[in-house]
Amino acid sequence: MFHLLEAQQFTKRNLRELFDLSSRLETILARGGDECLKGKILTSLYFTPSLRTRFSFEAAMLRLGGSILSTEAADIFSSELKGRFEDTIQVVSEMSDVIVLRHYESGFAKRAAAVSCVPIINAGDGPAQHPTQALLDLYTIDRHLGGVDGCSIAMVGDLSGRTVRSLCYFLAKFHGISISFISPDLTEIKDDIKEYLQRHKVRFTEITNPKDGLVDLVKEVDVVHITQLSKEYFTDHLEDYKKTIRNYALSAKALRAMKRSAVIMHPLPRADELPDESDSDPRAIYFRQNRYGLYVRMAILCTVLSCYPKFL
Amino acid sequence: MFHLLEAQQFTKRNLRELFDLSSRLETILARGGDECLKGKILTSLYFTPSLRTRFSFEAAMLRLGGSILSTEAADIFSSELKGRFEDTIQVVSEMSDVIVLRHYESGFAKRAAAVSCVPIINAGDGPAQHPTQALLDLYTIDRHLGGVDGCSIAMVGDLSGRTVRSLCYFLAKFHGISISFISPDLTEIKDDIKEYLQRHKVRFTEITNPKDGLVDLVKEVDVVHITQLSKEYFTDHLEDYKKTIRNYALSAKALRAMKRSAVIMHPLPRADELPDESDSDPRAIYFRQNRYGLYVRMAILCTVLSCYPKFL
Amino acid sequence: MFHLLEAQQFTKRNLRELFDLSSRLETILARGGDECLKGKILTSLYFTPSLRTRFSFEAAMLRLGGSILSTEAADIFSSELKGRFEDTIQVVSEMSDVIVLRHYESGFAKRAAAVSCVPIINAGDGPAQHPTQALLDLYTIDRHLGGVDGCSIAMVGDLSGRTVRSLCYFLAKFHGISISFISPDLTEIKDDIKEYLQRHKVRFTEITNPKDGLVDLVKEVDVVHITQLSKEYFTDHLEDYKKTIRNYALSAKALRAMKRSAVIMHPLPRADELPDESDSDPRAIYFRQNRYGLYVRMAILCTVLSCYPKFL
Repeated sequence: MFHLLEAQQFTKRNLRELFDLSSRLETILARGGDECLKGKILTSLYFTPSLRTRFSFEAAMLRLGGSILSTEAADIFSSELKGRFEDTIQVVSEMSDVIVLRHYESGFAKRAAAVSCVPIINAGDGPAQHPTQALLDLYTIDRHLGGVDGCSIAMVGDLSGRTVRSLCYFLAKFHGISISFISPDLTEIKDDIKEYLQRHKVRFTEITNPKDGLVDLVKEVDVVHITQLSKEYFTDHLEDYKKTIRNYALSAKALRAMKRSAVIMHPLPRADELPDESDSDPRAIYFRQNRYGLYVRMAILCTVLSCYPKFL
Repeated sequence: MFHLLEAQQFTKRNLRELFDLSSRLETILARGGDECLKGKILTSLYFTPSLRTRFSFEAAMLRLGGSILSTEAADIFSSELKGRFEDTIQVVSEMSDVIVLRHYESGFAKRAAAVSCVPIINAGDGPAQHPTQALLDLYTIDRHLGGVDGCSIAMVGDLSGRTVRSLCYFLAKFHGISISFISPDLTEIKDDIKEYLQRHKVRFTEITNPKDGLVDLVKEVDVVHITQLSKEYFTDHLEDYKKTIRNYALSAKALRAMKRSAVIMHPLPRADELPDESDSDPRAIYFRQNRYGLYVRMAILCTVLSCYPKFL
Repeated sequence: MFHLLEAQQFTKRNLRELFDLSSRLETILARGGDECLKGKILTSLYFTPSLRTRFSFEAAMLRLGGSILSTEAADIFSSELKGRFEDTIQVVSEMSDVIVLRHYESGFAKRAAAVSCVPIINAGDGPAQHPTQALLDLYTIDRHLGGVDGCSIAMVGDLSGRTVRSLCYFLAKFHGISISFISPDLTEIKDDIKEYLQRHKVRFTEITNPKDGLVDLVKEVDVVHITQLSKEYFTDHLEDYKKTIRNYALSAKALRAMKRSAVIMHPLPRADELPDESDSDPRAIYFRQNRYGLYVRMAILCTVLSCYPKFL
């Protein structure tokens, strides 16, 4: 059986197959969807809440004819969860065909996979990884730049998060990648990721004090991958937050300086990272990126359940 | 595309069509429902919780063959909602065919409609409006009194709420309406509604100190529309609450005094607004009123999605 | 109409029919399920949360083609619930074909049944009863020991809980049962259950100070039915907890001493009641017991809705 636990488990060939399937599922969806997952049950098991990821997987399941069991916050709601995590997973797996798991601790997706009798999909395990969100980022790059090899990426904002981590693991599988990490000290990219990139010969630079609305830092890149800087990091220094946020936001001037072929990505929703002008800019593809998430997650579900639309 | 945002957007003709469809859907439901919404996804997006309204819309969707994504309390559960509300709506709308939205602030249904790529149905936006609840009230009146024109209505209890507001906007579309607003000062009808009614030539009176169990106030009306007086309004004066509640409850004597053709409506569940005798009184139609909600909401879903049962 | 409210309502013949149906549904599920509940809506109405029971009933409904309305914690989420409980039940029953109700107070399942227009299934009402969990325990015993009559059972751990209560009511219907209740004073079996067992001539003993890892207490029994001792009972004496828990856990030595034909049951998830060796022991049937819950709940739904798979 196939669990989706972390970026490292994928080969470049796996990714190609998944992306081809994703784009064919887009066509199928446009024609009204399919019922290849009819009779299957996806269980959303969220120990910390998520609206976007949970709905995205559940919509993917419904669009392919499947059904859903769902908990929005298993840790609040379950007195039963006072026992062994593994027992709960095994119990839930007996009722499900696939479990999408989000947990607040690293490594819990693997712990779940060790005992589950159905595929586990990691929808975020603590600060560790969020591979399916990174997969849709990668699919977006692949699709809009005609491939990932040779890509130059500026990652801006909170780089300590699990999606950025998973994305770096994925990027390390490609050739000629160069990354600039642009973030305040508080949310900089973690050492283990830097070591992994070095070991896989990925060029990267770190910038912790950007100037001039990022103009010089983004004008040559193919991808600006920007995220919210959570206020939570600045609880003791809320004035700092306002000053900081301005330095890590893409300015209108930087937008104008960017290459015509470049793309701007964001996981949504935004705070103040992007200029008002960006919504009408054809290079801003964050809403399409979000929509691709649905196709990629449909492809993931078909793959782990080995059920494909007939007329593929 | 058609959003359902506020009572004012309806014409009398829209209402007629919706009510005709509602009553035909009742027949269809009695015959086992329909699958005209098969493959469609309704997303329940509740920023404040609701059991009755959420279940009513979701049941309407299921009875017509559709599917559901649901959050019971988006504001508790979604760290992602720290960003722009509009981004979240746009993201969710990409996964849905229709969004039923409840929000704690006025005007958020309109803000959602401005960016959503699917119909938005306002299931309550702060203190502003709750048009679908008022629609089922209006449908109940229309059905049981053979039309709304010429109707005399006593509205009793909490008149500051959004359903009463929406209902007043609806009533202003009809001829010969007269309303008596009976409530404590704390929950009286708001000035903007009174101005709207004056502008539309609806006769109304206000009573803030009713006596004698409402006998004189209800004996001539066609409709008693009564609601709970929330304890929350009396937090500092809980003794006041008990005294007040008694004045705004329908007494057994008032029940006996009411016209034979009159009806008693209540959104349910009740606290102590109605006498024990009312449940066995044929004029008490609150349970049927609630059931009508299902038909009206089925009709709303068919209308905004432009999907109708075949044998209509 | 048939509500499932408490263990006492069943006859031995009812149980036989339910268990026969459960085992046939297992076969049907293995062949891909059935659609006999298509078009039916199960409403999960949980006033206190539950993951295992809620998912088990919802999965049973989905596997038979039905649909679901669900609330994880009605008391948190429903401002509407400030009114009469009976009104809420009646309102929800109008939208549903069956309601599975969990409530924090004894007797609320009966109160619901008195007004609901669809079957009520009691999924736990306060400390009173949890008949469906006890039904799956009984089915497990019936299946693995070839019948319940003559069975010798050690019940270990928290015996004040509602499942143990329901199970005792069920066991009193059979012949030659003997029970040993093994628990600390804090969680001992309640007097009313003891009186019920005496009245029905069920032999039982009580042990509140077990020694030597339960060896002597379990070596002759057919069933070890063991549950978590909640830390909540020991809030003021957390050191006590650790000492106590050890006395009410099955030791590896006791496991070795048990009869070859015996079975070990546990509602899952476990804390520290069972030795590490038990998972690989063929007598440990708790995961199967949990799976049987799905079949038993499918059978319950078919029975209360009078809808059966065609090729039964």
